[in-house]
Amino acid sequence: MKISTDAYKGVRDFYPDDYKIQEYIFDVWKDTLQSFGYEQYDSSVLENAEIFKQKSGEEIVNEQTYTFTDKGDREVSLRPEMTPIVARMIAHKQKELSFPIRWFSMPNLFRYERPQKGRLREHWQLNVDLFGVDNKNADVEVISIASALLKSFRLTDDKFVIKINDRDLINDTLSEMGLDEKQAKKITKLLDKKNKINNFDELASEIIGRDFVWKPEPNEKITFIMNELKSLGIENIEFAPEMVRGFDYYTGIIFEVFDTGKENNRSIFGGGRYDDLISMFSNEKVPAVGFGMGDVTLRDVLETYDLVPEFQAPVDLYICVLDEPFIRAANIIAKVWREEGLHIVVDITGKKVGDQIKKAIKLKSPFIVCIGENEVTTKKVVVKNLETRKEKKLKIEKVAEFVLKSVLG
Amino acid sequence: MKISTDAYKGVRDFYPDDYKIQEYIFDVWKDTLQSFGYEQYDSSVLENAEIFKQKSGEEIVNEQTYTFTDKGDREVSLRPEMTPIVARMIAHKQKELSFPIRWFSMPNLFRYERPQKGRLREHWQLNVDLFGVDNKNADVEVISIASALLKSFRLTDDKFVIKINDRDLINDTLSEMGLDEKQAKKITKLLDKKNKINNFDELASEIIGRDFVWKPEPNEKITFIMNELKSLGIENIEFAPEMVRGFDYYTGIIFEVFDTGKENNRSIFGGGRYDDLISMFSNEKVPAVGFGMGDVTLRDVLETYDLVPEFQAPVDLYICVLDEPFIRAANIIAKVWREEGLHIVVDITGKKVGDQIKKAIKLKSPFIVCIGENEVTTKKVVVKNLETRKEKKLKIEKVAEFVLKSVLG
Repeated sequence: MKISTDAYKGVRDFYPDDYKIQEYIFDVWKDTLQSFGYEQYDSSVLENAEIFKQKSGEEIVNEQTYTFTDKGDREVSLRPEMTPIVARMIAHKQKELSFPIRWFSMPNLFRYERPQKGRLREHWQLNVDLFGVDNKNADVEVISIASALLKSFRLTDDKFVIKINDRDLINDTLSEMGLDEKQAKKITKLLDKKNKINNFDELASEIIGRDFVWKPEPNEKITFIMNELKSLGIENIEFAPEMVRGFDYYTGIIFEVFDTGKENNRSIFGGGRYDDLISMFSNEKVPAVGFGMGDVTLRDVLETYDLVPEFQAPVDLYICVLDEPFIRAANIIAKVWREEGLHIVVDITGKKVGDQIKKAIKLKSPFIVCIGENEVTTKKVVVKNLETRKEKKLKIEKVAEFVLKSVLG
Repeated sequence: MKISTDAYKGVRDFYPDDYKIQEYIFDVWKDTLQSFGYEQYDSSVLENAEIFKQKSGEEIVNEQTYTFTDKGDREVSLRPEMTPIVARMIAHKQKELSFPIRWFSMPNLFRYERPQKGRLREHWQLNVDLFGVDNKNADVEVISIASALLKSFRLTDDKFVIKINDRDLINDTLSEMGLDEKQAKKITKLLDKKNKINNFDELASEIIGRDFVWKPEPNEKITFIMNELKSLGIENIEFAPEMVRGFDYYTGIIFEVFDTGKENNRSIFGGGRYDDLISMFSNEKVPAVGFGMGDVTLRDVLETYDLVPEFQAPVDLYICVLDEPFIRAANIIAKVWREEGLHIVVDITGKKVGDQIKKAIKLKSPFIVCIGENEVTTKKVVVKNLETRKEKKLKIEKVAEFVLKSVLG
């Protein structure tokens, strides 16, 4: 009996054509964050389970994460999110680190639940965090990065909207309404579901014992942030007073980016301020703003709007070998051309020339060169453009420059 | 009680300065493999445990890998090695794929044993494989990539030696000596330890019942491969008749790269031909040659020979803001400069100018610009080189070009 060739349930194999899309996403994430001076960090997939239990609760960690006990009796999780980990890392070196800190990472994260569209058991997530600035300009910076990222993926402003709210505004408004802590908590939970349920008004009125009207005006903080973002040309921003975002650890501004497509009115990603998280590990408070952007939804958005670019072929120049003894010469020439910057495959199969050319076409190599006795003697080769079928005879030492010019456009 | 900030036992946190070394290693791996026309692929960290059991045995998998049973009663492992996974992926699409296939990946791998120097519970490994070519030139190509990789890390030929042997030569020689299968297997296992034990001759003679002399001559295959590699300028290659390499799945040429340093006479990495592995999954045989190179040993080698390069600062130009209301103007200018290719941090702390400059120096930013009323009115800024302390007054639209020229050298 042969073993099954399927991947494990709910995760993905990335064949080269799939991996190119992942790589494109990783490259854009990285280039954009580096343009804002953010530095990349990483952690292990394996993390002490304890740090996720504090905020999410024992039950959720046991049920929704991959968690097990190792031989040393340590409870270990496959990281389900990065924020508690980066908080741990910051706390670990709090004394030596110089704040403000601008960091990003692109970890794979794990969740242990039934796989469904858009929710896999393993996904990658860009994590962006700014630590050590408690003023509104930090929120402006982080939200402007969120916008810059989507624009770097060539998503135009009409395709997405950034919704913004403030946990302080929610708390202040509920407190002004005279609600006690318990009622406020219930209303907040309900607000989070407002757009998904029909009987919000009814349920809310039940909680507070009178009619519930939710029409807070944006506070000074929200107004400032929206104005600053608009001055940076970010017009697709909206005050969303009913938006709560589930995570317990947010303490101020929260934001969420939505696809504006009629059929795809989905949340793409979001984030906010979480000033208390580092106190899980440390007595000193460190203000923090950040967000996470997952690869699965993003890839879906890019595919919906046909924004996945065409990728370069893995080979710039394919060397076909006219007769097996010339494989050595082909290898020597390839070595020189590689050192000059070309991506080169030498055909070492010993197959017929026609089959070698077919393979070059299959690999979408823009150019091919055949090497045999004549080429070795004259030190000249014919470079053939496989698309235009044009040929050019060149000295061996002129080939790399010629191909590079054409490949780089 | 605060939660511990330590990482899980036997794994690493990568703070930005550590991550830069990882990134350097990943970049060199990738650039080198792409120059040979190899395409990147990946799989999930989670893999059905079964595929590792076939070759390594149930016991080893249970004891030395992270393996557990999920809610769906599937036995799942954190991938301990990539070779069985890539074999599975090839078998899964064997009909659609066009051979030969040149693939590489850079997975993190997991082993479940007591961490020790050079052996962590999570490490990264470059995996290089050439599928579908059963001739000697495939072995030549793969070994020449192994050499090219170390040279790309600026390791000169005198620092390492490539040892080569052939499983066929071992088997043929033992068979010519008249050994039965059981004896041959025992001798092979013993050969693998030859350089680590004192009483090899004694033990070997015991197995075969007479004096054991091991002096095979290189066969035609080994001679061909060594000659081809020498023609490519790879002189640091040695025939090593006692080398076996532990893995069961090798079927032909095997090679291993050693550090030649007197105090560090260690194995850096190795590989070989494994023509039978894909038959775990498929009825069709697919010849394969490949190797894996781990990040932990490599990093150690680079550090030993002082070959870790200096890294670029995360910031090209730091913007200090003279007065808080000008943060907006600074953000607008930064946006333009970023679009022109610069990595820029705007100081949004509202701190004194002296403190802002200190932060720029801490980040090793090569340049700083201060923005206030005067700069906004005149549309000119003073660009200061923080190393030479030289200053230059420039129109805002000329700054990016000036800084880029200097940063790119």
